[in-house]
Amino acid sequence: MESRQITIPVSRLEMFSDAVIAIIITLMILSIEIPSIEASDSSGVVWEKLSGMLQPAASYLLSFIIVGVLWVNHHQFLRQVKQADRNLLWFNLHLLFWLSWVPIPTNLLGHSIHRPEFMVLYGFVMFMCLLAFLLMRLYVERANLFIENISPRLKKQSRTKLIVCTGLYLVAIFAGYISVYVSIFIFVAIAIAYFFPSKIEIQQ
Amino acid sequence: MESRQITIPVSRLEMFSDAVIAIIITLMILSIEIPSIEASDSSGVVWEKLSGMLQPAASYLLSFIIVGVLWVNHHQFLRQVKQADRNLLWFNLHLLFWLSWVPIPTNLLGHSIHRPEFMVLYGFVMFMCLLAFLLMRLYVERANLFIENISPRLKKQSRTKLIVCTGLYLVAIFAGYISVYVSIFIFVAIAIAYFFPSKIEIQQ
Amino acid sequence: MESRQITIPVSRLEMFSDAVIAIIITLMILSIEIPSIEASDSSGVVWEKLSGMLQPAASYLLSFIIVGVLWVNHHQFLRQVKQADRNLLWFNLHLLFWLSWVPIPTNLLGHSIHRPEFMVLYGFVMFMCLLAFLLMRLYVERANLFIENISPRLKKQSRTKLIVCTGLYLVAIFAGYISVYVSIFIFVAIAIAYFFPSKIEIQQ
Amino acid sequence: MESRQITIPVSRLEMFSDAVIAIIITLMILSIEIPSIEASDSSGVVWEKLSGMLQPAASYLLSFIIVGVLWVNHHQFLRQVKQADRNLLWFNLHLLFWLSWVPIPTNLLGHSIHRPEFMVLYGFVMFMCLLAFLLMRLYVERANLFIENISPRLKKQSRTKLIVCTGLYLVAIFAGYISVYVSIFIFVAIAIAYFFPSKIEIQQ
Repeated sequence: MESRQITIPVSRLEMFSDAVIAIIITLMILSIEIPSIEASDSSGVVWEKLSGMLQPAASYLLSFIIVGVLWVNHHQFLRQVKQADRNLLWFNLHLLFWLSWVPIPTNLLGHSIHRPEFMVLYGFVMFMCLLAFLLMRLYVERANLFIENISPRLKKQSRTKLIVCTGLYLVAIFAGYISVYVSIFIFVAIAIAYFFPSKIEIQQ
Repeated sequence: MESRQITIPVSRLEMFSDAVIAIIITLMILSIEIPSIEASDSSGVVWEKLSGMLQPAASYLLSFIIVGVLWVNHHQFLRQVKQADRNLLWFNLHLLFWLSWVPIPTNLLGHSIHRPEFMVLYGFVMFMCLLAFLLMRLYVERANLFIENISPRLKKQSRTKLIVCTGLYLVAIFAGYISVYVSIFIFVAIAIAYFFPSKIEIQQ
Repeated sequence: MESRQITIPVSRLEMFSDAVIAIIITLMILSIEIPSIEASDSSGVVWEKLSGMLQPAASYLLSFIIVGVLWVNHHQFLRQVKQADRNLLWFNLHLLFWLSWVPIPTNLLGHSIHRPEFMVLYGFVMFMCLLAFLLMRLYVERANLFIENISPRLKKQSRTKLIVCTGLYLVAIFAGYISVYVSIFIFVAIAIAYFFPSKIEIQQ
Repeated sequence: MESRQITIPVSRLEMFSDAVIAIIITLMILSIEIPSIEASDSSGVVWEKLSGMLQPAASYLLSFIIVGVLWVNHHQFLRQVKQADRNLLWFNLHLLFWLSWVPIPTNLLGHSIHRPEFMVLYGFVMFMCLLAFLLMRLYVERANLFIENISPRLKKQSRTKLIVCTGLYLVAIFAGYISVYVSIFIFVAIAIAYFFPSKIEIQQ
């Protein structure tokens, strides 16, 4: 008796991932400590205290952009997948596991952007997110879960781009020891590279 | 070889936005500090301590109304959009970014409604939300993503209303320095203006 | 030129409400303070400290049941509504507003169940939730948004049940001053009354 | 006059459960306390402080795996259910109730993995989750809500597997008193057993 695996519609995967990403994005804002203002504080003192939120805000912005770019590409990727199987659920859960860690180094980086240790941790979590994404992609290719009308050339380009970016994230981890700005530059540059629509499109 | 952009069903955009807005609305309630009541406190003291939650509650109510109104209009707006493209995802993420900030000034305003600095911050975040909404709308118009059966006259009315309100939010930022009540009046007046169904309806 | 209101599929309303209720239910657990255990604490001391979570747990359980019952009935109710309009969105937002308050009195009640002030606050929030539900129901009836195949007799029964329960919640608010157990009894009794399937069913 | 129960599409049940599980998974990360780093701390001290997050991280990982496995099986299970009725909503809410408790013992276990009391509490919550799952499954079988094309033999295998695992979880509760590693071993072993696709598949 042959037993087949239950196939799961991709939309369920998308929705669960959306929920997790939506929660991560909004939870991160909670990591920003609100300064306690005294009734006797002058306007200048209040603004000074409030400006203490600028660094956590910058850290939040960076994470929001990285997670946002990942979200858009996660969508674009899943729209190219014809159906999900049990293994894909695991690969996706693996990605969500690392994504769920993002608020922690974002919080640390918000406290001090000049600590290379924080940048290393931040880079590590982001690298694991992208690596998990790459692993999921490689699985989909190997398991033939891609929809048919994607040209092999475009598929290869897209894979190469993802591999290169994952490698650059690895560099970003250790670049923090040279200068945190090098790390930030790499993160922002990759975000910009993924911001523009990739050529890996469906040929309808 | 021509490559086309992947179009994303508007429903996905709606769902992700819904999740983020649902989380923001419910997270804000956490910013309300619960007074610590001692076993020896008399009933009068307990009520006095509990009444300390009234100001944060008022601040929460104001934000709930503003975000709620925005949510209803976001829905109505998206129902007029025939399909989403990658750019629209970015415009929407930009809106969600500013929305995710709402709990911070809501918390501050809940601590003291009489600090003009808090009202300025509150007004700024709300202004950026509406501006992000306006930018998204202008993009949809320019990219011809509106469904066909909306009359140009109604579209123009709707756009004008949004531009005027965004301008009034800008006024509300600085009005906080004259009187916080002027700012609150502007926010409430705009909420009421958007509460009533606009004439920009679909002509089926 | 006639302009009609945009009708919104009920499913969107359901989903947004689901998200908010899911968040409320899971956020409430965060209100339970975890005791700090010292390395030197004996097993007896640890269990004693952990048992301090029993009262907040009971409070959480009560709120979970009330909100859970409301969620099931919210679903059953919406499945009888043929379409949503803008007003229904507002009535639903009004309900969600009061629901979002539930974690606050749940937290207070978890600290001390014997404070009538807490029970009054708890009862008040629950009463407002049910009142908001009743108002939404009355609106749907008046605006003729119910699907056709519900018999008027069943509709009336259902409405009467809701009005009676809302009235009992009002009693529960003040019953807290006589004995908190009277209030709890009312809440649990109504939950049980709503637990069993009502006769207001669709006649297919 | 015959009155029938309203049937609810399984997808709604799935979505609500997804939302709750997504929130639980992401909320748990908040239980990890971020060490406070002083500006004067040397790199060695920073890493030492950061390494204090390893134990909570391990606890989070364990819970993530258990909840993740449960989520995948919850999906697979619901895809075999043809329709939901009111009772199934209650059984599912019962499961979600116990799932919502997971962050509490996860937090405790993250503080100290060597306290048998914490492992007992952890095991108890996990056992109740699985028991709730088992009860839901037994109900679906008895109420004939399974889709038709599942062979009775496979159904029985699946039920037996679930009963055995629930029993093992019961063992894991008390095994904590012998050694916490026995408990952890049981949890991980069951996760692995459920990780691989079960033979209870749909025969299309």
